[in-house]
Amino acid sequence: MSLPGEFELIRRYFAPLAGPGSLKLTDDAAVVDLQPGRSLVATTDTVIAGVHFLADDPPDLIARKALRVNLSDLASMGAEPLGYLLVTALPAGIDENWVAQFSRGLAQDQAEFSISLLGGDTAFTPGPLSLTITALGQVERGKALLRSGAKPGDRVYLSGTIGDSAFGLKLAKGEPLTLSPSEKSSLLDRYRLPQPRLGLGRRLIGVASAAMDVSDGFAADLGHICQASRVGALVEAAKLPVSPALRSVLEAGEASLVEVATGGDDYELLFTAPAAVELLLGRIATELALPLTAVGEIRREPGVIVLDQNGRAVELGPGGYRHF
Amino acid sequence: MSLPGEFELIRRYFAPLAGPGSLKLTDDAAVVDLQPGRSLVATTDTVIAGVHFLADDPPDLIARKALRVNLSDLASMGAEPLGYLLVTALPAGIDENWVAQFSRGLAQDQAEFSISLLGGDTAFTPGPLSLTITALGQVERGKALLRSGAKPGDRVYLSGTIGDSAFGLKLAKGEPLTLSPSEKSSLLDRYRLPQPRLGLGRRLIGVASAAMDVSDGFAADLGHICQASRVGALVEAAKLPVSPALRSVLEAGEASLVEVATGGDDYELLFTAPAAVELLLGRIATELALPLTAVGEIRREPGVIVLDQNGRAVELGPGGYRHF
Repeated sequence: MSLPGEFELIRRYFAPLAGPGSLKLTDDAAVVDLQPGRSLVATTDTVIAGVHFLADDPPDLIARKALRVNLSDLASMGAEPLGYLLVTALPAGIDENWVAQFSRGLAQDQAEFSISLLGGDTAFTPGPLSLTITALGQVERGKALLRSGAKPGDRVYLSGTIGDSAFGLKLAKGEPLTLSPSEKSSLLDRYRLPQPRLGLGRRLIGVASAAMDVSDGFAADLGHICQASRVGALVEAAKLPVSPALRSVLEAGEASLVEVATGGDDYELLFTAPAAVELLLGRIATELALPLTAVGEIRREPGVIVLDQNGRAVELGPGGYRHF
Repeated sequence: MSLPGEFELIRRYFAPLAGPGSLKLTDDAAVVDLQPGRSLVATTDTVIAGVHFLADDPPDLIARKALRVNLSDLASMGAEPLGYLLVTALPAGIDENWVAQFSRGLAQDQAEFSISLLGGDTAFTPGPLSLTITALGQVERGKALLRSGAKPGDRVYLSGTIGDSAFGLKLAKGEPLTLSPSEKSSLLDRYRLPQPRLGLGRRLIGVASAAMDVSDGFAADLGHICQASRVGALVEAAKLPVSPALRSVLEAGEASLVEVATGGDDYELLFTAPAAVELLLGRIATELALPLTAVGEIRREPGVIVLDQNGRAVELGPGGYRHF
């Protein structure tokens, strides 16, 4: 099945995704109104087959993950999404069925996150499939969560659990892990379909002193917060929040806490907050049914130190997540 | 010379381009304030080596053209630019010198158009070099120039001259044309460095009934306006504004008016306006030192008809610009 031209693809698969402000994708740009007193928040991320995802991953999940990693960036700023622009560069191997599944994935997540397509560009490429999404959001003026506000004495928090996605990727690449089928699928899901923590980001405005989403790996990303805030951090590895499935992998000796701390692609929120808001954070966690775990403390001395259960600093290696 | 990693490339070449709202490119997203009473205007375009430009085009010109085609979309909406997000997907063949030249090109146009880099993403690709730019702008609420407002009786206008870029591309590809060196370089310049008509777009608010920029070719793009406005248009080919260099090519019999009308990549503004604003448009043209030429009229009957000097309808072929 061959692929129709650019305009026909847009008409069949992308125009139905277009919402208010998109001008039905038939104008030169989108026109969007912000609420009064709000600043625009804008972020863009690209994903390339063979670099950021596997070419034979299900098209709907490729679409949803590409969208969600951008929504996660909005979440980390405390922003509420307004919509997104989508650039698809399609190689010769893609057929119309692929595009149909891809657009169904987008439709599903548009419904889940109450957003719509604002605009974009569709091109054909001699290279690998690649997708670039620009997510636009709004946040109360002067209130965006930044990486630069962490203060000595603040606690370091993580939402949800980390490490799952890195081990989900190992499974996707066929590496054997001693896990039940349901545990395997929970890790795979975490790799394929991250959960942007938009509700949490909104609730952290005025509460967290600094925030970002974990994409390069917990240790590297905490390093980014520390660098931007000109502080350091001391973390206890044993406190890192780990899912039951990943706990099995750790207990089977098939994973180390270093891998959990550096795995990447988690898209949980990593944030700092003064000790005084501990109770409030407990209420937010209950309300959102999302665990928020204190894993360490910000201190004056630069650098991120992760202590093992014997109080010894863990060697993190060159650190940071590397794409496969 | 090998290429440094993503963070180092950003630090050396992209961070110096970052302006207000970019948070020095060290946060998860940009945060930008619009002026009160303004709507956000957002557009995105991707260009791929071998599809939209030649891989050995000068890096600074690749950068500037990629930026300018996006600014041209803002111009066509009557918007004032706020800044842009840049995604670069770099193949193995790119060295640091290339990135340095590329970023110098961006710096030059940032100065020319008073904008700065707001954010982006830098990736490495096994495929061809590709660039995706998202331009953000603002426009008076409810005043954006759309494609859908053309009315029967309105005149059809073009800014500047059209066709130059299509023949500049022929020259870039080595096709022989009987031209002086200075004529050749003027056509090549038009292909490599389009002029986004931002000043004109701003002035057309409240004056033009519909507008867009010419990227697919004059005839195809006038078709887009007619379709969005549910009208048709009658154009006189002899009135199409042609540069002295392209006039030589026409006179040498090496180009036809059909090629001028369908050439594409012009990035001039194509707009419609009621006859009553003719004098005002004359003043705007003088003020901006930019010719505005009436080339035809909007009518009720659908379809775009281009008449030759004998009053016969020109056969435009399948129409529209095709990328090389």
